[in-house]
Amino acid sequence: MNGKPLVSIISAGMSKFGKREGLLAREIFSEAAYEAFTRCPKLNPKGDIKAMFIGHMGEAYEHQGHTGSAMADWAGLTGIPATRTEAACASSGAALRSGIYAVLSGLADVVVVGGVEKMTHRTTAEVTEYLAMASDYPFEQWHGITFPGLFALMATAHMHAYGTTEQQIALAAVKNHYHGSLNPKAHMQKEITLETVMASRYVAWPLKLYDCSLITDGASCIILTKPELASKYTDQPVHIVGSGQASDTIGLYERKSFTSLNATTLAAKTAYEMAQVTPQQVDLAEVHDCFTFAELMAYEDLGFCKLGEGGKLIESGETRLGGRIPVNTSGGLKAKGHPVGATGTAQAYEMYLQLTGQAGKRQVKDAKVGLTHNVGGSGATSVVHIYRSAQ
Amino acid sequence: MNGKPLVSIISAGMSKFGKREGLLAREIFSEAAYEAFTRCPKLNPKGDIKAMFIGHMGEAYEHQGHTGSAMADWAGLTGIPATRTEAACASSGAALRSGIYAVLSGLADVVVVGGVEKMTHRTTAEVTEYLAMASDYPFEQWHGITFPGLFALMATAHMHAYGTTEQQIALAAVKNHYHGSLNPKAHMQKEITLETVMASRYVAWPLKLYDCSLITDGASCIILTKPELASKYTDQPVHIVGSGQASDTIGLYERKSFTSLNATTLAAKTAYEMAQVTPQQVDLAEVHDCFTFAELMAYEDLGFCKLGEGGKLIESGETRLGGRIPVNTSGGLKAKGHPVGATGTAQAYEMYLQLTGQAGKRQVKDAKVGLTHNVGGSGATSVVHIYRSAQ
Repeated sequence: MNGKPLVSIISAGMSKFGKREGLLAREIFSEAAYEAFTRCPKLNPKGDIKAMFIGHMGEAYEHQGHTGSAMADWAGLTGIPATRTEAACASSGAALRSGIYAVLSGLADVVVVGGVEKMTHRTTAEVTEYLAMASDYPFEQWHGITFPGLFALMATAHMHAYGTTEQQIALAAVKNHYHGSLNPKAHMQKEITLETVMASRYVAWPLKLYDCSLITDGASCIILTKPELASKYTDQPVHIVGSGQASDTIGLYERKSFTSLNATTLAAKTAYEMAQVTPQQVDLAEVHDCFTFAELMAYEDLGFCKLGEGGKLIESGETRLGGRIPVNTSGGLKAKGHPVGATGTAQAYEMYLQLTGQAGKRQVKDAKVGLTHNVGGSGATSVVHIYRSAQ
Repeated sequence: MNGKPLVSIISAGMSKFGKREGLLAREIFSEAAYEAFTRCPKLNPKGDIKAMFIGHMGEAYEHQGHTGSAMADWAGLTGIPATRTEAACASSGAALRSGIYAVLSGLADVVVVGGVEKMTHRTTAEVTEYLAMASDYPFEQWHGITFPGLFALMATAHMHAYGTTEQQIALAAVKNHYHGSLNPKAHMQKEITLETVMASRYVAWPLKLYDCSLITDGASCIILTKPELASKYTDQPVHIVGSGQASDTIGLYERKSFTSLNATTLAAKTAYEMAQVTPQQVDLAEVHDCFTFAELMAYEDLGFCKLGEGGKLIESGETRLGGRIPVNTSGGLKAKGHPVGATGTAQAYEMYLQLTGQAGKRQVKDAKVGLTHNVGGSGATSVVHIYRSAQ
């Protein structure tokens, strides 16, 4: 656990997640940027920040691309290099990775990485179609499959291979809604029971309505600098000590395994090695629960348990607040919400709060080492970061 | 002119630009990647390449986002971190900038940056709408203006301020079609006369059909490494010695000037200072002639002439092959074509050919220092790079 800090987070911001009626993505993003700037009074945003990367998944929602410049403009940073990164639902995980490159390059000492999506003004059918653009058009979309179907195929394979049950999968929803009930920025702040999940209608067997993450509006950002400059801006930095990003075939049909995401395994390996951290040393994690099943698969791919034992791990309660390794204390994509482009840096925002002791009712005691895991599409992108508190 | 190399280009590839019927973007990109890999036999693509950034502007064309992973897959590089960058028509200029960060970061010694767009299977109305997503939705698109209109407003302001004429603007089309006639990969390889341009129908006064760049399919990529590693892969690297990227308000209406792009001025200043190069030392340039007028404005913003004298410079013939500073020897966006996401790295491809003496009939004699200039939208992004031959 001696991996040197790559970069340090000196501040972070997140808009309220939910239905943000009447607002444009840029307005929601400025809410996140405002929090990050206000939290760090020693930072002079207009002079100090030298680059920005913005995760944004779909220009169809608002008929608006060119999101990097637009968000820089509305954050009061017009002039700086600002680039949109897109890697499906891992768009702002990729923004974070790109921001780390930028800080390490020596060309930009202070960098904002963030993400944004405005989705709820569209119908569910529209959102489903726009999201599907992150899967393979000729070989998947064309034939009518959308993301619930793709993840249902993986869940089915996992049930077949390991005996994972619908109840086990449903437990991730129950846990994450409990966590969400403790997060004042979460889209859903209500606890739900296992019965509610099990009784909800099937979207794509075995996944039911309550196994699916939320269509949400939201934005998030974090501010990075070199570790040696962090003390200039804050007494409470959080260090990023490991970073891994990996890709896989865009189509699920070409993969070697349907029960594990190779991109996650690769990204995690890189991040753990860089951080000199083992999965057992991770105190808490935010993982990509776009569907409840994906959380169980993430436990396995990230090494929190053996392959096939994700179901048992969620049953054990060890990933619930108070357990050995709380997962998705923010409520996750399931309850906090999943404004797709904003999710990666929203995970980093939660880690920043937790590792600086600012997570309120959902604070994990003595949290020192955290991990975030952000997946794009059905797993053609995975981004893993490892964080260490400065204390 | 002593700026140290930031990174070195060890290879480059570009697909044939044009109407590539029946092909998907990924297939067109693999054509570019194949050329780049073949050109550099000492490179082991699957083992050596550690990251990829892909400029891609619109997921609407093929209903396909998540382009980074898709292109990595079809280039045989599945596994590596692969991210799509989007900054409108400067998407692959931003990919190049991101790739430079990655190489300088020390996390990725060899990086592919490229871009791709498949457009011609869509109607002109569809393409116009998709492109418009890079302008301001609530304040521009909503009211019906599209890019020809936005650039026409700037051209009109320039004519008013400086007396620039329609004939002067049209000369950029004549020159670039001449250059395109010498480029076997250009979309249009036919010379045109001033009369043809002047007699073509108005799209948005004063811009006529022949003042507009082409709707084109195409892909391009270059391979970057650290300068100290370049000799391992090639005897003929091209060094990038300056890099600048800047942003501006996404809406034209908020700008301080309508006759100059502040983002270009800022990006050029950064790049020139880093390279320790003056505009007078530039031997040739590829500039963003999405509309002929934009080329004249680029001359001014890049310092090739004084503000307001772009019209005189094109009239002088100095920017034609054989002149003092040939501009858009590739044919530019006007004649080579403008597959939007591919344009930035296609400019870098031309620079690679020219600075290694491989530009055939359009070779600029004794070219040592080159510049590329890639603009997104109506100027909310501008990316400038400066190159130096290793000889």
